Amino acid sequence: MKLSELSSALAEKGFANTIEGDADLEIVSANTLDDARPGEISFLSNPKYKAKLNLTRASVVIVAHEETVPEGLTVLRTDNPYAGITAAIIIIHGYREHPQWGIDAQSRIADTAEIGKNANIGPFVTISEHVRIGKNAIIYPGCYIGDRVSIGDDVILYPNVTVYDDSRLGDRVALHAGTVVGQDGLGYAPFQGSWLKIPQVGRVVIDDDVEMGANCAVDRATLGETYIGKDTKFSDLVVIGHGTKLGERCMMVAQVGIAGSVEVGNDVTLAGQVGVAGHIRIGDNVLVHAKSAVWSSIEDDANYLGFPETRAFQYRRQAALVQKLPELRQRLRKLEAEVESLRQSIAGQN
Amino acid sequence: MKLSELSSALAEKGFANTIEGDADLEIVSANTLDDARPGEISFLSNPKYKAKLNLTRASVVIVAHEETVPEGLTVLRTDNPYAGITAAIIIIHGYREHPQWGIDAQSRIADTAEIGKNANIGPFVTISEHVRIGKNAIIYPGCYIGDRVSIGDDVILYPNVTVYDDSRLGDRVALHAGTVVGQDGLGYAPFQGSWLKIPQVGRVVIDDDVEMGANCAVDRATLGETYIGKDTKFSDLVVIGHGTKLGERCMMVAQVGIAGSVEVGNDVTLAGQVGVAGHIRIGDNVLVHAKSAVWSSIEDDANYLGFPETRAFQYRRQAALVQKLPELRQRLRKLEAEVESLRQSIAGQN
Amino acid sequence: MKLSELSSALAEKGFANTIEGDADLEIVSANTLDDARPGEISFLSNPKYKAKLNLTRASVVIVAHEETVPEGLTVLRTDNPYAGITAAIIIIHGYREHPQWGIDAQSRIADTAEIGKNANIGPFVTISEHVRIGKNAIIYPGCYIGDRVSIGDDVILYPNVTVYDDSRLGDRVALHAGTVVGQDGLGYAPFQGSWLKIPQVGRVVIDDDVEMGANCAVDRATLGETYIGKDTKFSDLVVIGHGTKLGERCMMVAQVGIAGSVEVGNDVTLAGQVGVAGHIRIGDNVLVHAKSAVWSSIEDDANYLGFPETRAFQYRRQAALVQKLPELRQRLRKLEAEVESLRQSIAGQN
Repeated sequence: MKLSELSSALAEKGFANTIEGDADLEIVSANTLDDARPGEISFLSNPKYKAKLNLTRASVVIVAHEETVPEGLTVLRTDNPYAGITAAIIIIHGYREHPQWGIDAQSRIADTAEIGKNANIGPFVTISEHVRIGKNAIIYPGCYIGDRVSIGDDVILYPNVTVYDDSRLGDRVALHAGTVVGQDGLGYAPFQGSWLKIPQVGRVVIDDDVEMGANCAVDRATLGETYIGKDTKFSDLVVIGHGTKLGERCMMVAQVGIAGSVEVGNDVTLAGQVGVAGHIRIGDNVLVHAKSAVWSSIEDDANYLGFPETRAFQYRRQAALVQKLPELRQRLRKLEAEVESLRQSIAGQN
Repeated sequence: MKLSELSSALAEKGFANTIEGDADLEIVSANTLDDARPGEISFLSNPKYKAKLNLTRASVVIVAHEETVPEGLTVLRTDNPYAGITAAIIIIHGYREHPQWGIDAQSRIADTAEIGKNANIGPFVTISEHVRIGKNAIIYPGCYIGDRVSIGDDVILYPNVTVYDDSRLGDRVALHAGTVVGQDGLGYAPFQGSWLKIPQVGRVVIDDDVEMGANCAVDRATLGETYIGKDTKFSDLVVIGHGTKLGERCMMVAQVGIAGSVEVGNDVTLAGQVGVAGHIRIGDNVLVHAKSAVWSSIEDDANYLGFPETRAFQYRRQAALVQKLPELRQRLRKLEAEVESLRQSIAGQN
Repeated sequence: MKLSELSSALAEKGFANTIEGDADLEIVSANTLDDARPGEISFLSNPKYKAKLNLTRASVVIVAHEETVPEGLTVLRTDNPYAGITAAIIIIHGYREHPQWGIDAQSRIADTAEIGKNANIGPFVTISEHVRIGKNAIIYPGCYIGDRVSIGDDVILYPNVTVYDDSRLGDRVALHAGTVVGQDGLGYAPFQGSWLKIPQVGRVVIDDDVEMGANCAVDRATLGETYIGKDTKFSDLVVIGHGTKLGERCMMVAQVGIAGSVEVGNDVTLAGQVGVAGHIRIGDNVLVHAKSAVWSSIEDDANYLGFPETRAFQYRRQAALVQKLPELRQRLRKLEAEVESLRQSIAGQN
């Protein structure tokens, strides 16, 4: 594809752009500034990597309108270079092409299930009674869909996904391999020296445009719903406890764990391995840094870090002081000796 | 169901109870005080939610005998409201009804396997040589059961569970989707600049009434047994290392990881994301708070928290002092200045 | 097997050894010093367990050449007792014997797939278009292998493993049940108030002799490769982010999570639940202790611990001082009172 053609395709997708340099360059792929080779398009989004513009072997770099660039480097200017390179990758490579199974003869689909048109269902898939699935579903081998599950249009379930009974998935939901939705949460009442299992009669609702990574687990609610809001994205091995409700456009990075009955607002990012205690509320537009332990509710627009969670700038100051504890103790000892010496000297005067 | 009928059913299950108010109310479901609507029964167990009694729309609330309640609220009094609501949910909703497959023609069962009566085995299940399974087994699609596995009565394996060769599961064990039992642990000896794999020739034994959440992993022992005691419950993504032994009635909350050769007593709760180092012992009746790192053995009846683990009340004091470090340093600086000033003033006197 | 026969078999495998005691003893199994019974061989590798030599019921113990041992105990001396017991276990027990399926009639193998000789492929396995698999492959039930995947010789995929399209696995790779390789990482660009998915067009390459535990997840690269070096071993539930590259002979203990675009050297051990932030470098021969959070790059030959990571000896000193914070504050208060008293006494003198 010529750079001029890519430029037109970007403009069609809403990315107004201008080329400075050779519009006839042939573009075959996209890559980072470090790894790009001739024939590849790259991008500069984070100003801290600006020096790499001088070293990159990329044929073209997507940059912001105001960016100054080395002489002789062909650039494509647009408002948002990160979204721009994303659109370029979509144009050049497209998304994954899925195998075509039709409705495979070795899948097991209950007579009472309603499957929308254009379904693509692999072998060894089980679809249970009274399931409803919208159009264009792609269901990879080994998936299990329980009784009365409701699934929207354009959903992708990768291999070996399990969706328990009564769960509801919106449109364009994608669940990667091994992810489990709707299993029973940890609900037991102590009774006569043993545990009495609390029936988990609630369900899971996953709203439109949610994508989850591999081997995640979302508990069904004990009563009511566990809810994942529109356009929220999970990485791998994320766990959501029963009755927890997540807002829209959240990012749950790998190995995040949220206990039960938590409310999470919109536009929240929990970085890798963050843990959140039960029965609290996290506001809108919150960032919690990796591996932090959130014990208490967090207000809107906050940035937290630590164990327990602390405002990030305070935590960094505390952590720096903890590293200075040996020095602080030394200063304390010195002071103690000086005060003792002063006391003796005063005592000597009297 | 009328409240009077529910009351009788509870009494039959061993929950002596009395109704105060309208015994003819129709009860259709159970819910929390916050979410309950008319027709629902709720409960008050934790006194900190007592004020909610004034606001709830629940038709009936289960409370303790001594609880004072707002005038006009119909209540059902019993000894243990939390177990009582659990029993009410069991009476009203029951537990999950499983699909009925009989022994599905598309399952693969070895001729040498012995399956007890009333088995319910879904499609795409593999049951290997010399497996023995008790009566009333429910095995969902996609499960794999390895050679010589022994399974008790009334076991439920949810979809895509893997049980490796030689594992033993007791009666009424339930494993949720994606859970893996009996894989090789991390056992290698350094040898000639590479790793020599140690054959993992032990097995996993899971005792009666154990339930595990989704996507857990329990390593087989290198030699001997990894053991999970009776009535112990796991949430999701819990990992147990090779040769570790857990006692009875423990609770392993989501994402707990225990290394190899650990001994855990009875009635131990490890909260979410707790990690436990290898070759140590955790006593009976221990609580470790979420995300703590347990590096050393813990005595019976203890309550730990932190990284490394610390008695919880001490940890909370330390954490509070860490937050005061900036203030402590300020006080230290001020003292240093004052002592210097005192010294000069004494030097001036002499 | 007689001890003399075991001794010869060890010598053949390169473990020169000498017997002191009864070479005719019958050896049926291997075990730890604590658990061994008569007829079992054990070993002493860590000197801190030396006292157990007096108590063990093992018939024979493998010890180092220089080790002093109780009178009457039969020992087998060799250079490296830990590798020696490993070799003894291999000789006595061997590795797992796998079921024999041939190429099962209930597997689904695309016409365009090339499968090497002596393949052993179970039921309910899906092998997609243009897959190439070397000789002696063992693929357990429920595995899914995507389009254009390339797999070497002598590979073992345990049940319900998913290998996404375009992944490459070397020779002798073993992936335990539920592990997922090649799913999309968390890649989205913010665009017009929503998330625009970045096509994940890279792949995963797993080099020879890698073994992974159960329910792990390795993201494909956005562009280029996620790479796992030769002879690197994972325990269970390990997560590797997109574009990350691991060296040779690393050990990733259970629940380790590494973010994207990280470079890890050779011979690195990350203990259980360690988290590593994105876009950093960990040198060769690094040890990071359990549950640490690695925020910054780490130099070669280092030993780190903490949150954030700190040189281990420094962290231990800091942690000890944090535990002494109540005492330090007490000393500070005492000093403040003394200084105040000194000042008054000086003021009184003037």
